[in-house]
Amino acid sequence: MTNPIPAFTLPAINRRAVLCRRPVGIPQAGDFALDEVPLDPVGEGQFRVRNIYLSVDPAQRGWANEGTNYSDPVPLGAVMRALAVSVVIESRCAEVPVGLHLYGWFGWQDYAVVEPGAILTRIEQVAAPLSAYAGVLGMNGLTAWLALNRIGRPQAGDTVLVTTAAGAVGSLVGQIARAQGSRVVGLTGDDAKVALCRQRFGYHDAANYKAGDLAAAISGLAPAGVDVFFENVGGAILDCAIRQMNVGGRIVQCGTASIANWSPPPTGLRNEREVLTRRLQWGGFVIFDHLAAFPEALAALAPQVASGALAYEEDIRHGIAHAPGAIARLYAGENIGKSLIYVGD
Amino acid sequence: MTNPIPAFTLPAINRRAVLCRRPVGIPQAGDFALDEVPLDPVGEGQFRVRNIYLSVDPAQRGWANEGTNYSDPVPLGAVMRALAVSVVIESRCAEVPVGLHLYGWFGWQDYAVVEPGAILTRIEQVAAPLSAYAGVLGMNGLTAWLALNRIGRPQAGDTVLVTTAAGAVGSLVGQIARAQGSRVVGLTGDDAKVALCRQRFGYHDAANYKAGDLAAAISGLAPAGVDVFFENVGGAILDCAIRQMNVGGRIVQCGTASIANWSPPPTGLRNEREVLTRRLQWGGFVIFDHLAAFPEALAALAPQVASGALAYEEDIRHGIAHAPGAIARLYAGENIGKSLIYVGD
Repeated sequence: MTNPIPAFTLPAINRRAVLCRRPVGIPQAGDFALDEVPLDPVGEGQFRVRNIYLSVDPAQRGWANEGTNYSDPVPLGAVMRALAVSVVIESRCAEVPVGLHLYGWFGWQDYAVVEPGAILTRIEQVAAPLSAYAGVLGMNGLTAWLALNRIGRPQAGDTVLVTTAAGAVGSLVGQIARAQGSRVVGLTGDDAKVALCRQRFGYHDAANYKAGDLAAAISGLAPAGVDVFFENVGGAILDCAIRQMNVGGRIVQCGTASIANWSPPPTGLRNEREVLTRRLQWGGFVIFDHLAAFPEALAALAPQVASGALAYEEDIRHGIAHAPGAIARLYAGENIGKSLIYVGD
Repeated sequence: MTNPIPAFTLPAINRRAVLCRRPVGIPQAGDFALDEVPLDPVGEGQFRVRNIYLSVDPAQRGWANEGTNYSDPVPLGAVMRALAVSVVIESRCAEVPVGLHLYGWFGWQDYAVVEPGAILTRIEQVAAPLSAYAGVLGMNGLTAWLALNRIGRPQAGDTVLVTTAAGAVGSLVGQIARAQGSRVVGLTGDDAKVALCRQRFGYHDAANYKAGDLAAAISGLAPAGVDVFFENVGGAILDCAIRQMNVGGRIVQCGTASIANWSPPPTGLRNEREVLTRRLQWGGFVIFDHLAAFPEALAALAPQVASGALAYEEDIRHGIAHAPGAIARLYAGENIGKSLIYVGD
């Protein structure tokens, strides 16, 4: 059952980014410590990966915080929970051969020893740059495709409003919805990203939500009202856009990036009467509920990535030293496209 | 095309309750005036009804107010929009014979001259007291059955939490959900109604939301969390209950009775992160979107009403003089069961 150990000498040391302080709200660089520890042994049924691209995701905020979430918080002192694209370098697990590339729960570190349950997708045939498997062919693309189609359900001619429109998920939502026949408009946080939305991500129109009156910006983008609202931010943008939704509209609640801290929950406009009178359907989306649909979504996405039909951007930093500040950087909107940390050297 | 005019002398006068002042929030008695006007003539294709039971509904708040709603506001000086159970007394419309009982848009008045579009249901065979056709076999029963089954979709073993649990809609929701195999618990506003919920409307448990800690009351009713939340009130109860919902739970937004005034909208706890992390499905329900499903719902409800299996209460006042204050009385929770005004004498 043991695959041969590859013919190279492992370094003795694993560099890790460890959660050392419980963040309240958006995790800051000081909430993490970098350390170096000896490599774990590989037990029967386990395998060792060498991480190549560490993923930086808005959802890590929720994983690091205490309180309501869809998973237990990362324990203090543990490697930060993260997805990564990696290669198997040592295996005592027959179904996971050495040399296979994987996308899975390998953490912010150089090496991980895990069992097959940590795998999200097996990258059997590498048809795109490896980094793509952490983004457009990873959680971001899967989220965009499944959240839009399962909860948003745009019909031809609908107006789809996307928040974080130039982001790793939003930029894909816009392109997928447009290809399906919707009018697609986006909100983003600076003028360079507005230009990117219009020129690269195929939005019919886009606006900077920080410039001028928000209600006017939304009505300018969506003069016939909003049918599908891809909601990644919460807060004032939600309160404003919900009041411009059409009867029977759908809200895809995919993130709450604009709210820095949920303990205690902040206040805002009451929206229950909008839900009632507009007969909205407002649904929360967490990608990990949809594992069984990954093959269907990837089958739709992969050819478009391979052909170049689906545009995506990446923001790749080199070295694990970038990990501790990476989530805060994401929430500050400083990245363009999918945020990754390359640790493959 | 003209049916014979019945052999009785019509009074010359129609008594009406007219909207004379635009309410802000809950309509008060002073927002209406009673007047008497000559009877309208019956034109070709029209018919005249004698109203018997005028319906008093929470939705009339929205119909009378300016602002966001699902229908245009009642014009000042016009008869208050209302449903009624009535009998046809004069007809120049072949498909609507004299003597037929109807439930429809006949307004707060003694007589109405209308066209067939004003009819919601034809009461072809009177199998229950006429008043029932304005409540348990009218909008209330239809709303309870369709909102619960279309948006709430309870599964056997689910916990269903009902607000306004002893009310004209809530009391039916509780019974319908229980008959379908759910654990059904209710919130209501006084101890007499709590007793009614437990003893007459078949709730497994009920609590007075005004007595003590609301979060504790809800967790006491629903120790395993809430799967379906039948939401008629909005406000603090919503904010509290949403934080006790189970993953994948459904919120049926059917009313916002606890909020006196939506101009401007009040503030409350932000709930978008609850929608996200609990993967809720929150849907607005307006009965008039579901006209095509009325026969299906009535076919399910009518036998249960006829057999006495579905309990309901009525609060019937006599005389149109009760109309002006009736909506305010409803929002004050002073009625028990369906609020009606009998004007058939």
